[in-house]
Amino acid sequence: MKAARLHEYSQPLVLEDVPVPEHQPDEILVNVKACGMCRSDVQLVDGYFYKYANIPRPMTVGHEIAGVVSKIGSLVPKASGFKEGDHVVVAPGWGDGTCRHCQVGNTQICANVRWPGFGPVGGFAEFIPVPARYLIKVDKRLQFEELAPLTDAGLTTYRGVKKLRDAGALGPDRLVGIFGVGGLGLYAVQYAKLLGAGATVVAFARNADKLAIAKEYGADYTINIKNKSHDDVANELKAATGESTLDAIMDCAGAPEMMQLAFSILGISGHYTDVGLVGDRIDIPLFPRVSREQVFHGSFWGNNIDLEEVMALAAHGKIRHTINLFKFDQINDEINRLRKGEVVGRAVMKF
Amino acid sequence: MKAARLHEYSQPLVLEDVPVPEHQPDEILVNVKACGMCRSDVQLVDGYFYKYANIPRPMTVGHEIAGVVSKIGSLVPKASGFKEGDHVVVAPGWGDGTCRHCQVGNTQICANVRWPGFGPVGGFAEFIPVPARYLIKVDKRLQFEELAPLTDAGLTTYRGVKKLRDAGALGPDRLVGIFGVGGLGLYAVQYAKLLGAGATVVAFARNADKLAIAKEYGADYTINIKNKSHDDVANELKAATGESTLDAIMDCAGAPEMMQLAFSILGISGHYTDVGLVGDRIDIPLFPRVSREQVFHGSFWGNNIDLEEVMALAAHGKIRHTINLFKFDQINDEINRLRKGEVVGRAVMKF
Amino acid sequence: MKAARLHEYSQPLVLEDVPVPEHQPDEILVNVKACGMCRSDVQLVDGYFYKYANIPRPMTVGHEIAGVVSKIGSLVPKASGFKEGDHVVVAPGWGDGTCRHCQVGNTQICANVRWPGFGPVGGFAEFIPVPARYLIKVDKRLQFEELAPLTDAGLTTYRGVKKLRDAGALGPDRLVGIFGVGGLGLYAVQYAKLLGAGATVVAFARNADKLAIAKEYGADYTINIKNKSHDDVANELKAATGESTLDAIMDCAGAPEMMQLAFSILGISGHYTDVGLVGDRIDIPLFPRVSREQVFHGSFWGNNIDLEEVMALAAHGKIRHTINLFKFDQINDEINRLRKGEVVGRAVMKF
Amino acid sequence: MKAARLHEYSQPLVLEDVPVPEHQPDEILVNVKACGMCRSDVQLVDGYFYKYANIPRPMTVGHEIAGVVSKIGSLVPKASGFKEGDHVVVAPGWGDGTCRHCQVGNTQICANVRWPGFGPVGGFAEFIPVPARYLIKVDKRLQFEELAPLTDAGLTTYRGVKKLRDAGALGPDRLVGIFGVGGLGLYAVQYAKLLGAGATVVAFARNADKLAIAKEYGADYTINIKNKSHDDVANELKAATGESTLDAIMDCAGAPEMMQLAFSILGISGHYTDVGLVGDRIDIPLFPRVSREQVFHGSFWGNNIDLEEVMALAAHGKIRHTINLFKFDQINDEINRLRKGEVVGRAVMKF
Repeated sequence: MKAARLHEYSQPLVLEDVPVPEHQPDEILVNVKACGMCRSDVQLVDGYFYKYANIPRPMTVGHEIAGVVSKIGSLVPKASGFKEGDHVVVAPGWGDGTCRHCQVGNTQICANVRWPGFGPVGGFAEFIPVPARYLIKVDKRLQFEELAPLTDAGLTTYRGVKKLRDAGALGPDRLVGIFGVGGLGLYAVQYAKLLGAGATVVAFARNADKLAIAKEYGADYTINIKNKSHDDVANELKAATGESTLDAIMDCAGAPEMMQLAFSILGISGHYTDVGLVGDRIDIPLFPRVSREQVFHGSFWGNNIDLEEVMALAAHGKIRHTINLFKFDQINDEINRLRKGEVVGRAVMKF
Repeated sequence: MKAARLHEYSQPLVLEDVPVPEHQPDEILVNVKACGMCRSDVQLVDGYFYKYANIPRPMTVGHEIAGVVSKIGSLVPKASGFKEGDHVVVAPGWGDGTCRHCQVGNTQICANVRWPGFGPVGGFAEFIPVPARYLIKVDKRLQFEELAPLTDAGLTTYRGVKKLRDAGALGPDRLVGIFGVGGLGLYAVQYAKLLGAGATVVAFARNADKLAIAKEYGADYTINIKNKSHDDVANELKAATGESTLDAIMDCAGAPEMMQLAFSILGISGHYTDVGLVGDRIDIPLFPRVSREQVFHGSFWGNNIDLEEVMALAAHGKIRHTINLFKFDQINDEINRLRKGEVVGRAVMKF
Repeated sequence: MKAARLHEYSQPLVLEDVPVPEHQPDEILVNVKACGMCRSDVQLVDGYFYKYANIPRPMTVGHEIAGVVSKIGSLVPKASGFKEGDHVVVAPGWGDGTCRHCQVGNTQICANVRWPGFGPVGGFAEFIPVPARYLIKVDKRLQFEELAPLTDAGLTTYRGVKKLRDAGALGPDRLVGIFGVGGLGLYAVQYAKLLGAGATVVAFARNADKLAIAKEYGADYTINIKNKSHDDVANELKAATGESTLDAIMDCAGAPEMMQLAFSILGISGHYTDVGLVGDRIDIPLFPRVSREQVFHGSFWGNNIDLEEVMALAAHGKIRHTINLFKFDQINDEINRLRKGEVVGRAVMKF
Repeated sequence: MKAARLHEYSQPLVLEDVPVPEHQPDEILVNVKACGMCRSDVQLVDGYFYKYANIPRPMTVGHEIAGVVSKIGSLVPKASGFKEGDHVVVAPGWGDGTCRHCQVGNTQICANVRWPGFGPVGGFAEFIPVPARYLIKVDKRLQFEELAPLTDAGLTTYRGVKKLRDAGALGPDRLVGIFGVGGLGLYAVQYAKLLGAGATVVAFARNADKLAIAKEYGADYTINIKNKSHDDVANELKAATGESTLDAIMDCAGAPEMMQLAFSILGISGHYTDVGLVGDRIDIPLFPRVSREQVFHGSFWGNNIDLEEVMALAAHGKIRHTINLFKFDQINDEINRLRKGEVVGRAVMKF
C-alpha cells in the first residue's frame, strides 16, 4: 500500500510502497479514505516534539483519519457492533486502559498513550489497524473529507470550548474571545455559538480572510490584531461590545505574544483555555491572575465521548467546514503551504 | 391607586382604590406597566399555600412585574445607576441578605424571604415599592408585556434548564424532555434549545394546541400523552428519536401521574428538574432511581443573576412569547380561565 | 470446589461441589479467601430483584470478594502488572465497555452490566474468574475479612458520601445526617468525617447498640428515632446541634417511613443521597423539595476509581470495621440472622 | 486614638494620634483588639501595589482584624443580630454589592472593592468602622490574636485549598504539595489535611525550622528544596511517596523559580492554585500544561462564606497557630523582620 513516512527530521516525507500492516485480534483494519493535515504534522516533521519524545523512525504521519472498516479482528466484541463497510472515524490517544485517566475515559492523557500518525501507523497510508475501542461508527451520508478534520481540529476545539462551558464561563451575558482562526479556530467559533447559551463571540486574528470566514461562521464581532497594542485591542473590543474585557478565552494558537495580549483583556473570574502549540512558553504577569481569580486550562485533543458528541453535531448538520482537498502525492507541497501559513481552513488529503 | 387584593380565600379579588404605598429609603417606587398572571396566583387564591404560610390579608396579588422607575429612595446607592424613567423588571424573592443562601445570591430560597404579590405589595396595582437590589434595568426597546412573564414563567424555567446544563445532562447527543407546555413549558422548550448545545428536545403534553406552539418554538419532536400508557409513550419516543429513554427532564407541571410517567422513561444517569407545583406529591419507585443513579433537582423561581441572563437573551431577541393581554378590570375572569386550563401561553395584564 | 448456590427463590442456598469455573483469556482466576454477606443477598434469595431481572438459576451468591490471584489468562496485558499470589479485591459491576457510562468509568450502571454473585459466578465459592480490568491489587498487610466488605458496604457508602461532597454539601459549618447504621451506615459515618472537611455528623437509627458503635466511629451525635415523631426528632437535633435541619443526608436504609422523616428535616439547598434498598418507594411531599431547592441523588455501588480510593484509605489505616466472621457451612444461618436484623456490623465468610 | 499610618512609600509607618473615625449608618465601629501583619503589608510599604492602584495617603495599614463591637449604626438591620460587646472578625474585600461577583458573594474580586488597611481605615489603629455585612460574630472563647490572622493568612489559604478540593484534585490516593510554609503555608498544610479526604500532604520550602512546624501540623512529608535541582526534588518526592509527581499544588509564595520547580513536578490532570505574590511573573513551558491538561487557579483572599467556614473550624478547635505577638509601638521593627524573612508563623499586634 502507499504510505507517506518520516525518515529524517526536517526532510520531505518519503512516499513509498509498504506492506499493509497486520491488525491484532482486538483491532480493526481501516481503509483510509481521507486524512487531514494538522499544524502538528508540520511540527512533527520539524522536530518540535523531539525533546518530549524520541519516536523511532520511519513514522507514518497523519492523525485525522476517516475511512471504512476493512477487516475485523477475531477478539473484537460483538457488542461493539462493527461490520465490514462501516464508515468510521479514528479516535486519537490510545491509552493503556489501566491508569486513572483511562478509567474515566481520558485516554489521550494516559502516560503510556500511543498516537496514530506519531509512530509506525498513520493516516497518510491506505490502511491502518485501530483498536476497536477507538473507532466510532458514523452516518454514511457524511463526507470523509469533512469527517477527517473533526478528529483533531474539530475535536480539540470542542473539548476546549466544553471546558469553558463546564467551568461556568459561558452564558447569555458573557463575552467569549477566540484567538487564532486557522484550521482550529474556525471550529472553535462555531462551538462557542453552539455551547455558549447566547454568549457573544469575538474572533481575534491577524489575517483578514480568516476573520471574514469566522464572521460567516457565527462570530458576532471580529478584531484584526495585526500591529495593534493591548490598549488598541481593548478599545476596539469596548467599541464593539460595550465591554473592554472578555469572560472566556479560547486560544487556538498558543503564541507567546498573542497569549500576553489575550490575558491582558481577560476579565475578573475569567477562564482561559489553550489548545494551541505554536509557541512553547507562558510568560505573563502573576498579580492580575491572582487578584482577578482567573483560571487557565490546558486542553489536549479529545476523548471518545467528545468525539461522539462532535459526530452528533455533524450528523445534525450543525458544523460548517472550510476544506482544501489535496492528493496523496501532494503531501509535501501541502506541508510547505501550511508551514508558511497559506492554508485558510483545513487541508485534507483524499485518496 | 388601583389595586387587586385578596381579602378572602376562594373569593374573587377585590378591585379597589388604595393609597400609593410608601417606599423606604433603600427602595424604589415602580410604576407598574404590565403584570403577568401565574398558575400560582390561582393557587394563592385557592389556598394552596395556606398550609405552608399564613400570610396576613388583604394581599395585593401579582408577581411578574415590569414598569418604570417613579421615585428613588434617599439611600439607594448611586453605584446602582437608577434614574427616574428607567424601564425595569422586578426580581422576585427578596431575602434578608444575611443568610448563607443570600450571600451566594440565592435570595429566593432565604428562610426569611418576602415575595411581591404574596403580601401587602404586588403587581396588580399601579405602584409598588421595591428594594433597589431587586430591580434590573432593561432595554427600552423591549415590550413591558413581554418582560413581565420573564420574571417568573421565563425565569423559573431558565433556572431549571440551567440546572440540567450545569449537571452535565445536556449536549449534542442527549435527549431532553419538557413535560407540560403551558405558560412555563413554552419558555423551557426554547431554553432547552439555547442551552442544550445541540440536544434533541421532545415536548410532552396533553394539549395539541400547546404542542403545536412547542414545535414552532423549537421542539424537535412532540408527543401527546393523553390517554397513553407508559409503554405507549416510550414506544412513541423510540419511534421518533431512536431511543426509549431521556437523558434529562424538565417538569413544568409537577402533577403526580405525569411525574410517574416521566420517571419511567428517564435513562441511566438521567437528571430530572421539577419547577411545577400542580400537585404536591412525589410518589415513585425507589430502585430504578438508585440502580440508574438518577438525580432529582427541585428548582425554585430564580435569582438576580438568572434574571440578568434572561434579560440578556431577551435583549438579543432570542426569546419568543405567546402573550394573552388582558385589562386590569378583567383580572377575575382571567383567573377563572387559567383555573380551567383555557390559557395558551401566558396571560399578562397591561395598564 | 465448594459453592453456595441459589436453586429456588425463598429456599436455603445449596452448598455443593461444582467444577472450578474456566477463565477466559482476558480473565484472572481468583482463589476466594473471604466474602462478605450483604442485605442484598437476602433480598436476592427472597426474590426482591426478580421483577427487575430474571436471572437464570442456579446462581452462585456472594459479591464482596477478596482473594488471591491463582491463574492469569493469556491475553491479560502485562501493563496490568498482576502475578500469581497477588492479593486482590473484586470490583463489582462488570460493564460492556462500550456504552457512555462505561467510557467514563461507571461500569456499574452499564445497561449490560454483569454482577458477580448475581449469576453463574460468585464469591461464596472457592474460585471465581474475574475480568482483569475489575481486579484491584491490594497491600498484603490488609486482612481479607476486612477487604471483602469494602467492595460493597464500604464502597457503596464511599460513593454516596462522595456525591454529597462533590455537590458542595459538606464543609466545616455543615450538618450531615447518616440514616441507618447497619453494615453500610457504620462505614458512612466514617466517610462523612473523612470527607466532611470538619462537618458535624449525626447518626440516626432505631438500634441503640448500632448507634453506640456509630459514636465510637466518629459520629458527633446520635439520635435514636424509635417511636419518635418528625417533630420529636427535629427538636432533639436542635437540642444537640443548635440547628433543626440537616444540610446533607446519607440514607443507608431506603425505608419509606425513615425517608419521610429524613426529608422532613432536610434544610434549604440540602442534598440527599440514597444507597439503601430496604423499601422500593419514594413517597414524599413535593412543595418543600422545590421551594427549598433540594437535590436527591440515587447512588449505586461504586466504580473502580471509587474502590481504589477506598483501598487507599484502608492502606492508610483510616477505616475501622465491625466484622462478624462465619464459616462457609454457616451461610444459611447467617442469611437468617441478617434477615432478622440481628447482625451488628458486617458478616463475612472466611474460608 | 492611636494609628499606624503610611505617609510615604519605603518609609517607616508614622505612629500617631488621630480622631476616632466616624461610622456610617450601615456600619459598626469596632474596637480593634488584635491585628495580624502580612507580607502584603511589607509590599504595600515598599510600593509593590503602586502600579496597580494609586491609593491616596496617609493610609492606615493592617487588614487582619479582630475586635469588639463598640457602636452600631442606626441602619444596621436587626436581623444581623449584632450587639455591643460582641467579638467579631472583619471580612476583607468590601464590594459595591451590585456587580456579578458581589451578587454571588465574591465581594473580594469586585472591580470597585475597598480594602481595610489599604486606605483611610485599617487595623493598626484602635478603632475601625466596618460595614455590618462584613463583620462576623465569633465565639468569645477564641483568642483575638488567633482570630486576627484567620482573616487573611488563614482565609486566603482556606479558599485556595477549597478550590483544589472543588476541582476534584484531592482524595485518598492523591498527593498534594504545599509550596512555601511561612505565615500562609502553615495554615495551608492543615487545610490540605482537613479537606483532603485522606490525601498525602508534602510541604516544600527552603527553611528547615518552618518545615519542622509543617510536619508537626500534619504534613506527611517535608522536602527542603534549598539548592536542589528539579530532578533532585522529583527524586526525593519519589523516594518519600513512591510517586514523582503531585496531583495538586498550593503555592503560598508565588516566587518565579519556585513556581517553575513546582510545575515541573505537577502530574497529569494536576491542579495548581497560587495565592502567593512574592514575585509578579508566571514564566513556564506551555506544552506540558496542554499535553497533561493541567489547570492553574488564581485565588484571592476569601469571601464571607469562606471566613464563616474558617471560623467554624476554629470553633471546633481544628486549627493550630504559630503566633509571634508584638506591641503597637513595635510595628516598624516587625515590618523589618518580616521583610527579612525572619518571622516563623504569623506576627500579630495585640493592643
